[in-house]
Amino acid sequence: MSESVDKKWIVGVDLGGTNIVVGVLPMEGGDPLALRSLPTEAGRGAKYVVDRIVGMVREAIGTVVAEQGGTRADVAGIGIGSPGPLDRSTGTVLETPNLGWRNFPLRDLIANAVGLPAALDNDANCATYGEWWLGAGRGTSTLVGLTLGTGIGGGIVLNGEIYHGVNDGAGEIGHMSIDSNGRRCKCGNYGCLEAYASGPAIALRAVEGLEAGTDSVLPDLVGGKLEDITAATVYEAVLLGDAYASEVMRDTARFLGTGVANIINVLNPEMIVIAGGVTLAGDHLFLPLRAEVRRRAFKSAEAACTIVSAQLQGTAGVIGAAAVFKREKFGYV
Amino acid sequence: MSESVDKKWIVGVDLGGTNIVVGVLPMEGGDPLALRSLPTEAGRGAKYVVDRIVGMVREAIGTVVAEQGGTRADVAGIGIGSPGPLDRSTGTVLETPNLGWRNFPLRDLIANAVGLPAALDNDANCATYGEWWLGAGRGTSTLVGLTLGTGIGGGIVLNGEIYHGVNDGAGEIGHMSIDSNGRRCKCGNYGCLEAYASGPAIALRAVEGLEAGTDSVLPDLVGGKLEDITAATVYEAVLLGDAYASEVMRDTARFLGTGVANIINVLNPEMIVIAGGVTLAGDHLFLPLRAEVRRRAFKSAEAACTIVSAQLQGTAGVIGAAAVFKREKFGYV
Repeated sequence: MSESVDKKWIVGVDLGGTNIVVGVLPMEGGDPLALRSLPTEAGRGAKYVVDRIVGMVREAIGTVVAEQGGTRADVAGIGIGSPGPLDRSTGTVLETPNLGWRNFPLRDLIANAVGLPAALDNDANCATYGEWWLGAGRGTSTLVGLTLGTGIGGGIVLNGEIYHGVNDGAGEIGHMSIDSNGRRCKCGNYGCLEAYASGPAIALRAVEGLEAGTDSVLPDLVGGKLEDITAATVYEAVLLGDAYASEVMRDTARFLGTGVANIINVLNPEMIVIAGGVTLAGDHLFLPLRAEVRRRAFKSAEAACTIVSAQLQGTAGVIGAAAVFKREKFGYV
Repeated sequence: MSESVDKKWIVGVDLGGTNIVVGVLPMEGGDPLALRSLPTEAGRGAKYVVDRIVGMVREAIGTVVAEQGGTRADVAGIGIGSPGPLDRSTGTVLETPNLGWRNFPLRDLIANAVGLPAALDNDANCATYGEWWLGAGRGTSTLVGLTLGTGIGGGIVLNGEIYHGVNDGAGEIGHMSIDSNGRRCKCGNYGCLEAYASGPAIALRAVEGLEAGTDSVLPDLVGGKLEDITAATVYEAVLLGDAYASEVMRDTARFLGTGVANIINVLNPEMIVIAGGVTLAGDHLFLPLRAEVRRRAFKSAEAACTIVSAQLQGTAGVIGAAAVFKREKFGYV
């Protein structure tokens, strides 16, 4: 597994439904170099997306080699984070509703086109691993990551390794039901954390209250078009002192607190890192969230766990993808 | 860690709030020898309980040596399963409401009195590890155990090792909230799985419906004394074809199914082993439970996970405690 590391760089690819982000990581860590981002434009087909990734990877390598000194041979390989579910052993994306792919051999298509070895893992695992390697979780052994966005992604790092489960399905923390008879989730389950605390779910809960006649500054912030309310609008209203928006935020913290307490009771991790736009709310989110966790989790496990905001917003996926490749190729990160 | 194993036996101790069970395990597995069980009688004090355990261990060793041939020197040591929370590194029971102990150095008291090395782990972990070593989970790598009794104990085995978390607090699956605004649990949290599917919780839910006037054979089974209804009474009524008792059992399966689906989505294990009196209900429990899990969990993770009844009812704790010692002393099980 482990071999002597005479390479300087690893390329990280973070493939999302909206954007592709590519960067080059120094082997022993540091800021991503030659970072670039382009829209995914999944509608133009799988070949188009792969070609775009390959072009971005080649360009990033060229830039780093030119600017930092070195040669293409100094690049060890490519780590790729992709929406899942996927099969890591074959490097195949099994299914991605956002991209419309099925049983798609993403890893080898990129590896062969670029002429470098590659490793594939899911995007939420990569984001968590990035925070563990170079972000909020540096130096921890056991960490759980939650990324609040269109959905809620989750990743579990145990003793410095991503925990994948028996067929790469572990870490779907957003689809832990916190209310067995609750809101139907897109996944088919009921009462999933994602159905309450993802960005769209926060907006939906806010709109429901407004439609019921609650007084708030929120409609004014979107020119009366309630369908334009997002989680960011709610946060904006909180900063304006809006009582109803603050209530929506506290509810969000309570739902998240239930999920986080469940994770603490089951996994007893050293740290929980929360990423995504909602964390911009800072103490408006984290203070009630931590209070809710204290109310719910076992004391000794709660005391052993730090709940923090992610540090690598925007680059965690690229950094984590590079770490995935490094772990797979060299046996350490 | 690993040393050559020239010993023949390991003693397993399963300390519960009601009974103490002791047995001797052949080093490479097999049926427990010289099994014995005595009431714990915790009310008589910690010294009494320790003396009783020490006496049972000495007697079990004597019996095995006499009956199987060999000497006391063929016994490698003692594994002890105890209610938690506890600190494995110091062998200390931090707190057990059932026994009334605090910061109690159980491991060393037993080890010193018997004159053999000992290892300590919590009872639910031991029960799960026993099923993994010699029960339903033989040959699996990653397994989660649930024991439904007065409470709901949980244990997680990853790659053949008990997963403990950062301070021995992992595996409290019974205290995963499946209803964030649900029933208050004894642990302080709301809507814990234990508050719906432990033995007393099943009985409580049954009684609530009867008090609301539901027609059922249940009151007749306890001579009209509703407070005498237990989960076993509910099961008895199910077998008699009682519609209401069947509804209570299906509800139990639904609650459990939510918890099990959560575990599958988060940990993607190979197997989930369910132990405890409720599993006597067999298909009355497992068929609706598996159906509920299919309705809720991610398909590929659900398909990879077998949900089965425990095989070692009554001896899993003793067997698992011996396995804990073996793992700690010899580095394998």
